[in-house]
Amino acid sequence: MGSVVTTADVERLPGLNTLGVSMSRVDYAPWGGTNPPHMHPRATEILFVAEGNLEVGFVTTAGRHITRGVPKGGVFVFPRGMMHYERSVGEAPAVAISAFDCQLPGTQRLGEAMFGAAPGVPTDVLARALQTDGGVVESIRAKFQPN
Amino acid sequence: MGSVVTTADVERLPGLNTLGVSMSRVDYAPWGGTNPPHMHPRATEILFVAEGNLEVGFVTTAGRHITRGVPKGGVFVFPRGMMHYERSVGEAPAVAISAFDCQLPGTQRLGEAMFGAAPGVPTDVLARALQTDGGVVESIRAKFQPN
Amino acid sequence: MGSVVTTADVERLPGLNTLGVSMSRVDYAPWGGTNPPHMHPRATEILFVAEGNLEVGFVTTAGRHITRGVPKGGVFVFPRGMMHYERSVGEAPAVAISAFDCQLPGTQRLGEAMFGAAPGVPTDVLARALQTDGGVVESIRAKFQPN
Amino acid sequence: MGSVVTTADVERLPGLNTLGVSMSRVDYAPWGGTNPPHMHPRATEILFVAEGNLEVGFVTTAGRHITRGVPKGGVFVFPRGMMHYERSVGEAPAVAISAFDCQLPGTQRLGEAMFGAAPGVPTDVLARALQTDGGVVESIRAKFQPN
Amino acid sequence: MGSVVTTADVERLPGLNTLGVSMSRVDYAPWGGTNPPHMHPRATEILFVAEGNLEVGFVTTAGRHITRGVPKGGVFVFPRGMMHYERSVGEAPAVAISAFDCQLPGTQRLGEAMFGAAPGVPTDVLARALQTDGGVVESIRAKFQPN
Amino acid sequence: MGSVVTTADVERLPGLNTLGVSMSRVDYAPWGGTNPPHMHPRATEILFVAEGNLEVGFVTTAGRHITRGVPKGGVFVFPRGMMHYERSVGEAPAVAISAFDCQLPGTQRLGEAMFGAAPGVPTDVLARALQTDGGVVESIRAKFQPN
Repeated sequence: MGSVVTTADVERLPGLNTLGVSMSRVDYAPWGGTNPPHMHPRATEILFVAEGNLEVGFVTTAGRHITRGVPKGGVFVFPRGMMHYERSVGEAPAVAISAFDCQLPGTQRLGEAMFGAAPGVPTDVLARALQTDGGVVESIRAKFQPN
Repeated sequence: MGSVVTTADVERLPGLNTLGVSMSRVDYAPWGGTNPPHMHPRATEILFVAEGNLEVGFVTTAGRHITRGVPKGGVFVFPRGMMHYERSVGEAPAVAISAFDCQLPGTQRLGEAMFGAAPGVPTDVLARALQTDGGVVESIRAKFQPN
Repeated sequence: MGSVVTTADVERLPGLNTLGVSMSRVDYAPWGGTNPPHMHPRATEILFVAEGNLEVGFVTTAGRHITRGVPKGGVFVFPRGMMHYERSVGEAPAVAISAFDCQLPGTQRLGEAMFGAAPGVPTDVLARALQTDGGVVESIRAKFQPN
Repeated sequence: MGSVVTTADVERLPGLNTLGVSMSRVDYAPWGGTNPPHMHPRATEILFVAEGNLEVGFVTTAGRHITRGVPKGGVFVFPRGMMHYERSVGEAPAVAISAFDCQLPGTQRLGEAMFGAAPGVPTDVLARALQTDGGVVESIRAKFQPN
Repeated sequence: MGSVVTTADVERLPGLNTLGVSMSRVDYAPWGGTNPPHMHPRATEILFVAEGNLEVGFVTTAGRHITRGVPKGGVFVFPRGMMHYERSVGEAPAVAISAFDCQLPGTQRLGEAMFGAAPGVPTDVLARALQTDGGVVESIRAKFQPN
Repeated sequence: MGSVVTTADVERLPGLNTLGVSMSRVDYAPWGGTNPPHMHPRATEILFVAEGNLEVGFVTTAGRHITRGVPKGGVFVFPRGMMHYERSVGEAPAVAISAFDCQLPGTQRLGEAMFGAAPGVPTDVLARALQTDGGVVESIRAKFQPN
């Protein structure tokens, strides 16, 4: 994907228990390193760009796609439970520090939730989700390793 | 899709304001009428099968797919913010009554969030999400009308 | 009373733990089957009429009695902690599906709380509550079995 | 009733807005001055006996009646939304200072909610609640002035 | 200090567990008996003056000092987490009954937090906090016993 | 003090409204640049060291002083409402990115709350807080400009 996520939530830092906050760091490769579309079921995310430049976006429940360029030193917010992504812009690698208002926000990457879950989500359910046919679904699923 | 959702949230029933609950009714066509993969950013959902039989599933943040058959009169729960779906089983149409612990739970269908948002989510971001190439992304996107 | 309540809360479905929702189903006899005045200490209730017709009401803390007829397919809300009741209207039995924004909403029926509690609430306390005398209190209490 | 309640909630002290607390003072006549059965829909109550002696009680949702004598200087708690009452014991008047974890806890006295609401709750609903007949209901209702 | 605090929180009354409220009583010596500057990390406080007269104050996060005289029978509120104090006015001892919207509000007295903590907070940190030098810090610290 | 705080809360970023998170950046001078003892009334803080090395500490309500060295890349948490501080260690300047589980956490610096509030907190109240005399209080107060 071109990105690496390091998480400091209550599973890794038990001292966060009852405190209601957590953090993560994301390192992006240069030239489009991407943290692909995902959402956090239990938290709003506030993101600070520590290095490089990011392009970020989220999609509202009304289907509106909000996107911004966020330079080094900038801040952006992804509302609770909404699909969002980030990718680096330019030749320098990027680093983001994100914080969450939950000690265990959870992450659900859309590709993996649909195609990498085990046991597999039925092919026709996914075909209807993507308005495509079973052959396309199976060809995409072949790329995903079940977790 | 083979399903119709009717919603009673605070946008349709202003009297729900401050009360923290809402409901929806889903009607499913027989033989696999599907409410495709989606999630509610701000609510847990509890579902009652009023007519027919449903197969329901959700995917946890650890990538585990939990699925059950729920007959008429049965109850199931989808935890806050997690991807889930339902489809009818058998020759009878099905009806579900769902309730939410939020007056405006919101709904984000995964297919529409990725492929139907306006303006469009960048092709390469979606290609990375699905571990596929831009041609597949564009062929799927062509089926979705932007909201 | 002419009604039967079936509850799906965390005591009966342990899987509801931490999820903050529950449901119940009420079946009403035709011609006035009644779910008598009660309240839920820990939840707002949203009610869907699945069969038949209901007359529902609640009393605000300002002493105002709000009442409505709710036909099949209709929805009503009882705010957290307020006294409310439902009864069927017409010759058909009625069925309601109710949901709560708490996994253990609790129910306190007013008649049973006053007259059926064990050990008994003092007679003079109940007499003052109803602005009546001890004889009336004792005659009502005789009908209630202590829980 | 033999008791007078003075309330300091957000309707009387607008400065309490957003602060989530309120208080009330209850003065009880000697020899059984009673604050009759009532509940607060939106708050737990913690009570301090400033003068005199009280007998206090509440009824759980399982129908158990918890009762205690609380002397001057003692503290008791009524859980959110549950029916409770207090009355003075002995020849001295009593005073209680109560606090709530809500700026507008609300109060619903059981007698007034059933018999003093306007418009009136249907007679047969109340008769079923008390397992009595309409004549008894009407004789009690005659004592209550609608609010 | 001229004041004694008696606390009824969940550590002393285990029955308060899950109920979200607690109380304390403060007795003030006459002529300026003082409950010195402190704050409660987890609760708003509502205070009732049961005997005597108090002068109370708190400092907002904007540095504004709000102060009032509160006579017997009066009520005041200290918002969550803000520094506040009370002292008696006049020749009579004073008594306050305070309630909190948390079963374990906690108390942090500013003097003791800075100078009485164990192990000690570094001298230069305290010197910067008070814009003074290490000699003044050490002379103040000498009066505090570590807890 | 040797530190500069830049805040991204709802007063500066109105888009944070209802989202329940905020951030701040603190730049510390080398060799002991200090963010002096303070607390946030409405939020837990999670801190990430982006540059340099920090020594951080907080004092519990039981008077225990918890202190740690946090190197570049490390994370620490200050529980809601508790007094804490940070200072740089070593010859490099330090930078911290902090996040809060509230859109308006507020900050109360202990020195400024006691000595810089306007109108001034009474001298004898501060003298009791620090177990010192009025002369010391006035000499400290002279250094603070009222806000």
